[in-house]
Amino acid sequence: MNHRIAIIAVSAALLCHYGKAQTVPVTPTAFRPAESNQPGKLYPQVNTTGHVRVSIAAPLANKVQLDIGGKKYDLAKDEKGVWTGESLPQDEGFHYYQLIIDGAAIPDPASRYFYGAGRLGSGIEIPAPDEAFYALEDVPHGLVSENIYYSSLTQTWRRCFVYTPAAYYTSNTSRFPVLYLQHGSFEDETGWATQGKANLILDNLIAQQKAKPMLIVMDNGYAFKPTDSTSTAPARQGASIFEDVLIKEVIPMIDSRFRTLANKENRAIAGLSMGANQTMRIAMNHTDKFAYYGGFSGTSNYPDSNAIDVNQFLGGKFKDGAAVNKQLKVFWLGLGTREPVPFPASVGAFRAMLDKQGIKHVYYESPKTAHEWLTWRRSLHQFAPLLFR
Amino acid sequence: MNHRIAIIAVSAALLCHYGKAQTVPVTPTAFRPAESNQPGKLYPQVNTTGHVRVSIAAPLANKVQLDIGGKKYDLAKDEKGVWTGESLPQDEGFHYYQLIIDGAAIPDPASRYFYGAGRLGSGIEIPAPDEAFYALEDVPHGLVSENIYYSSLTQTWRRCFVYTPAAYYTSNTSRFPVLYLQHGSFEDETGWATQGKANLILDNLIAQQKAKPMLIVMDNGYAFKPTDSTSTAPARQGASIFEDVLIKEVIPMIDSRFRTLANKENRAIAGLSMGANQTMRIAMNHTDKFAYYGGFSGTSNYPDSNAIDVNQFLGGKFKDGAAVNKQLKVFWLGLGTREPVPFPASVGAFRAMLDKQGIKHVYYESPKTAHEWLTWRRSLHQFAPLLFR
Repeated sequence: MNHRIAIIAVSAALLCHYGKAQTVPVTPTAFRPAESNQPGKLYPQVNTTGHVRVSIAAPLANKVQLDIGGKKYDLAKDEKGVWTGESLPQDEGFHYYQLIIDGAAIPDPASRYFYGAGRLGSGIEIPAPDEAFYALEDVPHGLVSENIYYSSLTQTWRRCFVYTPAAYYTSNTSRFPVLYLQHGSFEDETGWATQGKANLILDNLIAQQKAKPMLIVMDNGYAFKPTDSTSTAPARQGASIFEDVLIKEVIPMIDSRFRTLANKENRAIAGLSMGANQTMRIAMNHTDKFAYYGGFSGTSNYPDSNAIDVNQFLGGKFKDGAAVNKQLKVFWLGLGTREPVPFPASVGAFRAMLDKQGIKHVYYESPKTAHEWLTWRRSLHQFAPLLFR
Repeated sequence: MNHRIAIIAVSAALLCHYGKAQTVPVTPTAFRPAESNQPGKLYPQVNTTGHVRVSIAAPLANKVQLDIGGKKYDLAKDEKGVWTGESLPQDEGFHYYQLIIDGAAIPDPASRYFYGAGRLGSGIEIPAPDEAFYALEDVPHGLVSENIYYSSLTQTWRRCFVYTPAAYYTSNTSRFPVLYLQHGSFEDETGWATQGKANLILDNLIAQQKAKPMLIVMDNGYAFKPTDSTSTAPARQGASIFEDVLIKEVIPMIDSRFRTLANKENRAIAGLSMGANQTMRIAMNHTDKFAYYGGFSGTSNYPDSNAIDVNQFLGGKFKDGAAVNKQLKVFWLGLGTREPVPFPASVGAFRAMLDKQGIKHVYYESPKTAHEWLTWRRSLHQFAPLLFR
């Protein structure tokens, strides 16, 4: 992939936490293997209070730690050389984590692996009270397809995943609307259909007739000119050309390969964090192509929290509020109640601008979640039912 | 998955090698990052002589080893706490491997992860002289789709992957033949489209007009009655009901979801190792459903190497050689020249029976490969062109 150098270069920094090491006393509540474990693995485990317990055999090790949620926790060794320990309670939802054995930061051999923070690594699912909306239920299931394509613009092979709803296979003539859905920084095109559970969320919504059957296209948000592709960090990659790749290459490919309703009224675009920022620019630059926008934990004024000058911002795209209200049927924003700086203030400044301009929008807050996947699963679950009405 | 307990229970044993630890002197030939690495990772590396070089930072570790090909190799630590070392030359093709840090067997944080040996773990690609046949080339690419389905027979959710050729998307009416392709023991439904590269192999063959456009269905070969599903090892899982699941559930689902040519003449079945054994039984029990059989590194007399009694073997299915020649258009067997006991003798005994019965068959040998994925990639590459003629 064209971003392989870039996303890895800073991953070490992203994964490096500075929380003070600590050991947490074993809690009495029942632990069970995490849903995100490899088949049959008994660890890592989670309990009802959100504690994470890991265990790994390392008989010759001097020090083993669990690294999760910005803190490192020392594990204790038993007489058999098995190290076990727990974290403090974690937010409900999905978290990336790693183990540290004598200074080596490694994936937990018992977890499944997820692409985030610029690497394939361990993740863990903490049960949430509303987890049924993204659970594997006894409903018709759509397919998730891996699509490989060559980009003339980046001169690299790229990949997108396409969710096709169960109804796509009940007729060879029916056509469907499309949601283009983007990941965040240091993530990739696998995120939404893996830790994002976008396919299960839509399977459930569609089965409950809460959302219209739709395709979801999940591409890779890192795209650069060939001349920029040899550099080693996003900042030095030059300007992103993802907008061009999506508009000139991906959308035409999807509309030719799949039975889509290829018009503005049947096309939505959304993204999380960096993807929210990217897709807002794309939606506003191509109001002839998209009628719906969703920004999950991000806006294009990021990281700025100051009042937005509508004459300057995105080339004045928000100056005429009435025009924006006509152009977009749904303008949707979501945020977790525990998101860190600068997200609340930056999204807040953006919403203040929308209000000042009289631009109608939906705003959703995910309770008790930070800048993580449960915030984005819930955002998709709230956003999808509003589409293509 | 219904086999999650079973396949993991013995994985430790499978991964536990007893080769004598040794350090190999650094060779002069150029090393480059392996094709199987995570994006942007500089290690592990391979060179033209098949040596594997790994490197990991573990400043506080006492001992770090590379575990590959049945041997453990001690790594050496530099002043920065980075451990580096090399293996002896490995066979060309794909191999599973792991690192051992102070007794902890872990995935290499720099490799991609592959399901085999009963776990998601590290794998490495050693360049082969014929690697172009499974390379990502500038040709039309088919899609690989994840299909989730509920099995009434196992009473579990199951999954298969379906390769649809590029031609599937150029028309909404064209119909295609189907190859059912199975993995080996302690592997799963992800193997053929990941380390097997079945999609790329067919993309290339079809583009060169050496194989007909076809669907490939890759299911999970572990299927047991609900009453058996709580046990913890294949041996204690009771009889496999994969044959019933494939015939009664998977084939009807595929023929209803996809535009297939749903008849014997347009249906093939093949598998590797355990999958070769399973699919031979299925092909012979359902000669009304399959016209083509491929056995890659396995036959149903496994592990026996004695002369086969055609009156007893598979209920006498091979007694009437003329009938078998009528029933199956292609009976194909493949083996690597470096396969371990009992495969050469067991497959040899089976071929002797075929010859004695006058049963026409194709036999292929993969040069310089053992019971590993390059043998099976080459087998698919040889087998697919013979199908649906």
